[in-house]
Amino acid sequence: MSEHDGVKSVLVVGTGLIGTSVALALREHGVTVLLADQDAGAVRLARELGAGEEWAPGAAPADLAVIAVPPQFVAQWLLDLQKNEAARFYTDVASVKALPIAQAVQLGCDMSTYVAGHPMAGRERSGPAAARADVFLGRPWAYCPVASTSARAVETVLALIELCGGDAVRIDPAAHDEAVALISHAPHVAASAVAARLADAAETALGLAGPGVRDVTRVAGGDPDMWSVILSGNARPVAEILEGIAADLATAAEALRAVSVDDGAAIGRVTELLRRGNTGQSRIPGKHGGPPSAYAVVQVLVGDRPGELARLFQVAKDAGVNIEDVRLEHAPGLQLGAAELSVQPEAAAALAEALRAHGWHVP
Amino acid sequence: MSEHDGVKSVLVVGTGLIGTSVALALREHGVTVLLADQDAGAVRLARELGAGEEWAPGAAPADLAVIAVPPQFVAQWLLDLQKNEAARFYTDVASVKALPIAQAVQLGCDMSTYVAGHPMAGRERSGPAAARADVFLGRPWAYCPVASTSARAVETVLALIELCGGDAVRIDPAAHDEAVALISHAPHVAASAVAARLADAAETALGLAGPGVRDVTRVAGGDPDMWSVILSGNARPVAEILEGIAADLATAAEALRAVSVDDGAAIGRVTELLRRGNTGQSRIPGKHGGPPSAYAVVQVLVGDRPGELARLFQVAKDAGVNIEDVRLEHAPGLQLGAAELSVQPEAAAALAEALRAHGWHVP
Repeated sequence: MSEHDGVKSVLVVGTGLIGTSVALALREHGVTVLLADQDAGAVRLARELGAGEEWAPGAAPADLAVIAVPPQFVAQWLLDLQKNEAARFYTDVASVKALPIAQAVQLGCDMSTYVAGHPMAGRERSGPAAARADVFLGRPWAYCPVASTSARAVETVLALIELCGGDAVRIDPAAHDEAVALISHAPHVAASAVAARLADAAETALGLAGPGVRDVTRVAGGDPDMWSVILSGNARPVAEILEGIAADLATAAEALRAVSVDDGAAIGRVTELLRRGNTGQSRIPGKHGGPPSAYAVVQVLVGDRPGELARLFQVAKDAGVNIEDVRLEHAPGLQLGAAELSVQPEAAAALAEALRAHGWHVP
Repeated sequence: MSEHDGVKSVLVVGTGLIGTSVALALREHGVTVLLADQDAGAVRLARELGAGEEWAPGAAPADLAVIAVPPQFVAQWLLDLQKNEAARFYTDVASVKALPIAQAVQLGCDMSTYVAGHPMAGRERSGPAAARADVFLGRPWAYCPVASTSARAVETVLALIELCGGDAVRIDPAAHDEAVALISHAPHVAASAVAARLADAAETALGLAGPGVRDVTRVAGGDPDMWSVILSGNARPVAEILEGIAADLATAAEALRAVSVDDGAAIGRVTELLRRGNTGQSRIPGKHGGPPSAYAVVQVLVGDRPGELARLFQVAKDAGVNIEDVRLEHAPGLQLGAAELSVQPEAAAALAEALRAHGWHVP
């Protein structure tokens, strides 16, 4: 199938963050989008955001229905939509895959027209107001056909993923659920457990917090109710990973107790965990999909005035250097901050030289 | 004491990341810096970076000696330096405080001239080559006088902190160690335990990794040997926090096991942990020392060409808007990415309007 011929109209069921983001992405390509949600207010907000028009039961079948509801409700929606011939093909975007597929089989859904899917995109915020058309750009989008899935259904869902700018990854449902337990669900619970220690901490202690603990606990800001539903749908795989993390931490605590009563050698058990952590951390693909350290970082001191960064980027531009990423750290109450500019390794020296030549302080 | 009168010459013992960074910061203020390290190569590198000159035993006493060695060696260095009258006052920068103070008392050091200190600054990298003069800017710098510490010693260390641009925080040594266990040491071990699960993970699973797990595990990239020394020096407080985290995770795992065998209500125990995580996470001060959401975020789509961001910042400048922070996310293989611009809340609308007026796509 070429150029999304098969996806001219899409019904989005569930206008939360992901459903509305899919709708916005499709609208940018001129696809007709119809919206449905049990919450009439959510549909209205999504409409006002330009995500599409309200769906009316009995409308002509859409080319594709995207079921964007919590995992536990996907199969029932699929059954109802198929009964009403609401679309030719169906997919969902729930963050677990084995459960909705098993339930759909159990309910007697037509599995030939359904491809389970999961875009790896989300934000700390939720709801249609936080939706963005670009949230899927370059992000993995898992899809899980089963033996009875038709080739045409797969093509239609691949067209959807392409329209949204996602990176299609075909994966077995059980492998998907184990993968997200490992790289999303269990880390979320672990981050929450670290953050939970801070709930009753002294203000003085929190005042010493730096970027490390902010990064470790950032995802713990997510909605507890939404995450509880996700974790319920992937309970066994997440439990297995958490058991491993809890055991490692209990061992580390025990070793540190031994160190504190003069068994200095016990620290070796902690070092071993830190080494495994090093190995695991180094295997996570970088932000741009490449290895973590594909870019070189050039540091430069910048002032806190309008135009400071514009001048800096202008210098980079004039030197023919493309800045791939930038992080700014400004100190409270001070005029100076540090910018870390990520560039292709071969461009780092040229950028540093150009910045110095224009009076920038590159340490 | 005004204008650092008392700090004209400083001896830095230990030219690793922190020692060399202190030296570089002091050099920017014209302070005479003398460098000592058991590793002659580290001193040479620090000298070449402009951090100061090599210290010779028998030199005239410096105004202040900064002992930048691992916590276990601080007290012995303090004793030796005091015997040699190497300086008038002494401080250290080790990341635990009760241990060096107790050891110094035990060794019979002169406690009137010594103020234990700890700048809350560090990087994933280590060694003099990673040193930066600006690493302390606006960061908390804990200092821990004891009953016998002289007022003059405290003034001298406050002058050092001011010269380095740090934010002085007076704190009791035991409270300090419990605070860093909570906001740095235990989160480091927890992040390592999450990352350790990825050491043997399938490539497919890692391919689905997103920004969440990258943030949670970033600090796990730190040097295992250096961190083992730090954790050994703060073993009991870290063990206590880790026991709490491990217990919470074991409870969550048990609850999820129950959910997986049809006890759906057990998820409530996980929800409760996620809620405590929400509370704890919201208490961490923001990057700029203010509350976490002090800035408004304006999103804009940007292309992957040299000069794209320069033009964007020029538009902001022309609109009189200062961009406080910027994060770029580029999609692999695509020309488009999203920039998130942090600005003062009252400037967000003006920036979005200015960007739109110049043809930028602001979702």
